[in-house]
Amino acid sequence: MTYQVQIKVMPLKDLLDPQGKAVMSGLHQLEISGVQDVRVGKHIILSIEAADATAAETIAQQAAQQLLANPVMEFFEVSVSA
Amino acid sequence: MTYQVQIKVMPLKDLLDPQGKAVMSGLHQLEISGVQDVRVGKHIILSIEAADATAAETIAQQAAQQLLANPVMEFFEVSVSA
Repeated sequence: MTYQVQIKVMPLKDLLDPQGKAVMSGLHQLEISGVQDVRVGKHIILSIEAADATAAETIAQQAAQQLLANPVMEFFEVSVSA
Repeated sequence: MTYQVQIKVMPLKDLLDPQGKAVMSGLHQLEISGVQDVRVGKHIILSIEAADATAAETIAQQAAQQLLANPVMEFFEVSVSA
């Protein structure tokens, strides 16, 4: 079966996020107010052929740890849907 | 109240996604198998001060339409959590 796995890779909370700061100043220029903080990360969708959701999640975890996220600067979250 | 709004910005399904193709080949080199397709987009988290969730979502929709997503190449999804 094919599972859609969503991986969210975000900069660690303690780190500066220059891309987020750039978005903040863009929002100010557009006069969109109320936004207090912006964090910008990556969203990756994998289509994984696997026997069950657990197997698909294991593959996605491997992909995130070994390739997609840099643990020094980023954390990731994996969620699976059928 | 402050709401956390998640915005997912992804390349349109009909478009090629070169970053996704690069991830695919990286996964092959790492011998992680089972992945059939990869799409890479952006994940943006906004902290929005607003009266209610609907107001926060409206601000996030504006931000996505006017700044974060390029409608020619990308679509976006907004979800609000308290």
